[in-house]
Amino acid sequence: MIVDRLYEQVQEKGHVCVGLDTDFSYLPVKFADKFSGKGKAIYNFNKEIIDATCDVAACFKVQIAYYEALGLEGLKAYSDTLKYIKEKGQVSIADIKRGDISKTAEMYAAAHFSGDFEADFVTLNPYMGINDSLEPFISYIEKDNKGIFVLVRTSNKGARDFQFIKSKEEKPFYEIVAERIEKLASKTKGKYGFSSIGAVVGATNSEECSVLRKELSSSFLLIPGYGAQGGKAEDISEYFVDGNGAVVNSSRGILLAYKRHRKVESDFGLCARNEVIRMRDDLKSFIREQK
Amino acid sequence: MIVDRLYEQVQEKGHVCVGLDTDFSYLPVKFADKFSGKGKAIYNFNKEIIDATCDVAACFKVQIAYYEALGLEGLKAYSDTLKYIKEKGQVSIADIKRGDISKTAEMYAAAHFSGDFEADFVTLNPYMGINDSLEPFISYIEKDNKGIFVLVRTSNKGARDFQFIKSKEEKPFYEIVAERIEKLASKTKGKYGFSSIGAVVGATNSEECSVLRKELSSSFLLIPGYGAQGGKAEDISEYFVDGNGAVVNSSRGILLAYKRHRKVESDFGLCARNEVIRMRDDLKSFIREQK
Repeated sequence: MIVDRLYEQVQEKGHVCVGLDTDFSYLPVKFADKFSGKGKAIYNFNKEIIDATCDVAACFKVQIAYYEALGLEGLKAYSDTLKYIKEKGQVSIADIKRGDISKTAEMYAAAHFSGDFEADFVTLNPYMGINDSLEPFISYIEKDNKGIFVLVRTSNKGARDFQFIKSKEEKPFYEIVAERIEKLASKTKGKYGFSSIGAVVGATNSEECSVLRKELSSSFLLIPGYGAQGGKAEDISEYFVDGNGAVVNSSRGILLAYKRHRKVESDFGLCARNEVIRMRDDLKSFIREQK
Repeated sequence: MIVDRLYEQVQEKGHVCVGLDTDFSYLPVKFADKFSGKGKAIYNFNKEIIDATCDVAACFKVQIAYYEALGLEGLKAYSDTLKYIKEKGQVSIADIKRGDISKTAEMYAAAHFSGDFEADFVTLNPYMGINDSLEPFISYIEKDNKGIFVLVRTSNKGARDFQFIKSKEEKPFYEIVAERIEKLASKTKGKYGFSSIGAVVGATNSEECSVLRKELSSSFLLIPGYGAQGGKAEDISEYFVDGNGAVVNSSRGILLAYKRHRKVESDFGLCARNEVIRMRDDLKSFIREQK
């Protein structure tokens, strides 16, 4: 199961997920100028980031929106980036947040679990319904060794608009989503006790994290929002179980590390690596090895 | 405003939205064989459908999942299809159901309101929050004459999983979404009383439609689920206001009309046209001209 491989990557290399939300403007100008076209420049930038960080990061998350924004050439860079992650033997998460029903959901599953855009994991939006929008993806989990991370509770301010609305039973909406995910995940656990049906949960206060972790006890967690988005290691330590069971994403903090350190721009790979190591150690210092 | 143009298209040509959810398997084999590659065949099939129906349909909705499933060549067909709809002077709706926050939402807005994938309208998923996930798109509404349809209440069975959960105030979740959309839409109405901030609402029973229409009184509505998905004209008549204010999508019913009528397969364009006319008249017979 793919979640077991992710677990082992975390065990070996720590909890950092490198977010390849690569905007063209992030690239050092001199580096970008070497390539014909934004897509090629972005792909080559990603390649150097992957090379520089793959022995200290657990996995790579590629945010498709940044590539869609460049149209067809952007999606070629997206496809090439996913292929390179695979070639290097690393775990990829396609951050697509798709959510649709029946035949359309089947099409999205085919799109992102095979062919040009094949990834190991995808992120999904549950708004249209668990069975309808998730099942076509779930059928790939055993058959093709794939995994999903379902949006449960995001850490942006607007999350309160809907995810926090309370039901008659005083439960916020996101907890109802969590319950449904847990029900599915508990039936499909791998050898380390986690399912390839995972959840996206935001960096928030530690009390909330503790409750959410209990509700999602079978799910591997993907935690965005570290660093540039304000999440701190101490807030999220409750999400980990025996020092594993979750990865923490950082994008700009890693990709743009070279700007903060005033090094020569061509050292962007080394700066990214140093930032991953710093983040890995920061997380480790707050993650309790045993509950 | 783009919603005014859509209103005028409906006034002139009726309420049908042709759904280009074009799966390669839908194409007549002899037709498909004429082209090198699935992408090219699909684009040329779409072209014939557009040519055959554009004087009797209000607009065209292109479901991106079907194109993503074919990878880069599929997305080339998607891009070409949108360009052809524009070239023919027709209104396009990109059914992308994207939903993400901050910079990522900005990227999706750039992706689908400019460049290779430019469309007039996009569909959006509000799960991550109204301001965070919709605002980057809303900024294009006035500036670039664009529009959005926000998922409010879908008609699939799984919609009940979350959209129908009741809050403490006894309101189903989808009504809370509707209220927020109405608040935004009421501030930005065009000359016919509708806003380019529209809503996706399913074909359901007429009592529910009536309630939802009142709640979304400023929104133009996109109604999926007619025909192959089971929605009937009489159920949705309450969604219309003075015979306008909504379009009804059908995909397979139109694209595959040639299979039902046992005509020669090469007549798929004519069969699609006849089905659009039949559907247009079916809808008209149930839509009250005056409230």
